[in-house]
Amino acid sequence: MEKALQGMKILDFTRVYSGPYCTMLLADLGADVIKVEAVGKGDDTRHFAPIKNGQSGYYLYLNRSKKSITLDLKSEQGKKIALELAKWADVIIENFSPGTMQRLKLDYEEIKKVNPEVVYASISGFGQTGPYRNKVAYDAVAQAMGGWTNLTGFPGQVPARVGPAISDAATGVHTAVAILAAVYYKQATGKGQYIDIAMMDTVFSMLENAVSIKTLLGESPQRIGNSNPSSAPYNMYQTKDSYIVIATANDGLFTKLIHVMGQPDLIKEERFATNPARKANQKALDDIIENWTKQYTNAEIEAWLDEARVPVASLKSIDQLVEDPQIEVRQMLIEQDCPNVGKVKFPGNPIKLSQTPPDTSTRAPMLGEHTEEILKNILSYNDETIKSLKQKNII
Amino acid sequence: MEKALQGMKILDFTRVYSGPYCTMLLADLGADVIKVEAVGKGDDTRHFAPIKNGQSGYYLYLNRSKKSITLDLKSEQGKKIALELAKWADVIIENFSPGTMQRLKLDYEEIKKVNPEVVYASISGFGQTGPYRNKVAYDAVAQAMGGWTNLTGFPGQVPARVGPAISDAATGVHTAVAILAAVYYKQATGKGQYIDIAMMDTVFSMLENAVSIKTLLGESPQRIGNSNPSSAPYNMYQTKDSYIVIATANDGLFTKLIHVMGQPDLIKEERFATNPARKANQKALDDIIENWTKQYTNAEIEAWLDEARVPVASLKSIDQLVEDPQIEVRQMLIEQDCPNVGKVKFPGNPIKLSQTPPDTSTRAPMLGEHTEEILKNILSYNDETIKSLKQKNII
Repeated sequence: MEKALQGMKILDFTRVYSGPYCTMLLADLGADVIKVEAVGKGDDTRHFAPIKNGQSGYYLYLNRSKKSITLDLKSEQGKKIALELAKWADVIIENFSPGTMQRLKLDYEEIKKVNPEVVYASISGFGQTGPYRNKVAYDAVAQAMGGWTNLTGFPGQVPARVGPAISDAATGVHTAVAILAAVYYKQATGKGQYIDIAMMDTVFSMLENAVSIKTLLGESPQRIGNSNPSSAPYNMYQTKDSYIVIATANDGLFTKLIHVMGQPDLIKEERFATNPARKANQKALDDIIENWTKQYTNAEIEAWLDEARVPVASLKSIDQLVEDPQIEVRQMLIEQDCPNVGKVKFPGNPIKLSQTPPDTSTRAPMLGEHTEEILKNILSYNDETIKSLKQKNII
Repeated sequence: MEKALQGMKILDFTRVYSGPYCTMLLADLGADVIKVEAVGKGDDTRHFAPIKNGQSGYYLYLNRSKKSITLDLKSEQGKKIALELAKWADVIIENFSPGTMQRLKLDYEEIKKVNPEVVYASISGFGQTGPYRNKVAYDAVAQAMGGWTNLTGFPGQVPARVGPAISDAATGVHTAVAILAAVYYKQATGKGQYIDIAMMDTVFSMLENAVSIKTLLGESPQRIGNSNPSSAPYNMYQTKDSYIVIATANDGLFTKLIHVMGQPDLIKEERFATNPARKANQKALDDIIENWTKQYTNAEIEAWLDEARVPVASLKSIDQLVEDPQIEVRQMLIEQDCPNVGKVKFPGNPIKLSQTPPDTSTRAPMLGEHTEEILKNILSYNDETIKSLKQKNII
């Protein structure tokens, strides 16, 4: 099978989530990704939940399609190997705290000396510049500092962060765009460059119209739960068995909805006759709708409204998603045979290319699984040297 | 200034958010983006809030760096112009409902006949295949169907979608990766291809470890508010003036925290001595911490904990973010001079490349602002033909 990024060589110093998500997307698309891990310990996520028989599902999901080499980056010989691999690479990526790669003498300025054309990407919580540069960033911190958390949840109640650590994934995929754009430029001009991606920047750039509401009108966007600032009915409603999202933004969709509800005269009432009127009387309207939704199951309501082409959604649980027919048809749940745990399913790759589909057939590496192969085949080390490096715990 | 994607030609049929976010990222990086809009009406978001003096901040933010041509795609002459531009393009992108481009005879199969090497990307709610293909998708629908909403909010309470429409933005940036990977492949092989990106796929791929918790252990991930499934204290706490996020995941960080709190002996209590013990007694511990945080302002607590290098975050409001020193240093708030509204600030581009930084100097186009220029310069139409097309409302 041909792959889109065949021939692209990436040296990957990233750990945990943002960087590994980025390089997983690129590795599935065919890039040759060598992941550098700490000797004896590896990426922190090798010890993150869920763990079964010593294997972490966290690590296994985010590191498929990559090769693993262990290296002690603090030793002179480990550093030397890292520099030799840096010469081999088209792209280098790291997500240590700002300053760490400088201390290891593996920062862009050092690497440029041996590989002037390299594309070198750094991911951090707040970027390599600015007053927050050294602030400690977890996903919950980035979501809050970038503006998502304050806008998520219900008015007058405690705000909520998004459950999964999506600021990490979002930052990873923006970094992938940055890398591919820099490689495009390198192919055209022969020039490499440095990429500086911040989680806070990424979160801030994904605020839809919230910033322009402030800068254009001077208004301060607030939390509004599941409702819509200018349309009704547009909310989440209780059903017989769960909650359901129903979203209408104009008279046409509202008319379809009330026909399904068997209350087609609602639009004749002045208070519900137009979208602005419905928004002004949202509470009364939401109550009428919830009185209806409470009588039925999600499956019933969703079938009726899908048929009428009214935007509707069930809140899919993970239990439901792993059995979902759309997820299956879209190949968004792939299966891999992994040491100690056997066949396990993971999310697939959403980047669906017709000619060069993402290849998710190669499971994540065990710690240092490719150390010898890489040292022999890429750097031409002999068995004796490798043995000696092992004895000294450098690999 | 040199730009990373200089020379890349993109014909953009997208509207609203997912597609426009994708092409904004690429246009800032130097791609030549021609946005096709409906005659007299344009992208729906030209009428989305915030509106001032007839200008929409929603549209202005997401369409900078692009050119606008108006075309009646249902007319034969409009279709002919679209096909001529499709010949010019390296990349075509659209986000209509599945089937619409087929009905317009502007789908990949048709375009391939005039431009066999084209990279053609479609974005939709659920993809071009599968049982949900024709389901109507709004961002709230995609967030719910892909699994985010059910995992966001508090146990036993109504779940919450993320305030801003981030499933659109996330889908847009994954599409940008797909496009750049396909262009890389095209440069290597001369072959174009079709890209099929779904919002539900994207949301599902950004669930961190939630899927593998189910598939590896058989457990069902649930909403846990702002807490952490395996660490404490790790939550959001009320302060004198707002809420604050404090996140510790090990004894070291906890020890630093309780020293700042002036209660260094807490770790000597058996119930708080280890991370598992703290998690088991989370409620009692969170109460102690909140009793402390309530006495101080966010500014005070954040300064103390930053100093101690304990992960801490204020929930930045939009009012705060537009004055934030980090956002300023990172050039994440750019200013543009726009017709009728003067100078307005918008979020900048988070893809920071050192050699070819994103160029955000060109404001979004007025409706059809570049129609004549494009017809003359790219398609060599003469004044008379353009006049006649205008009279017939084809442009």
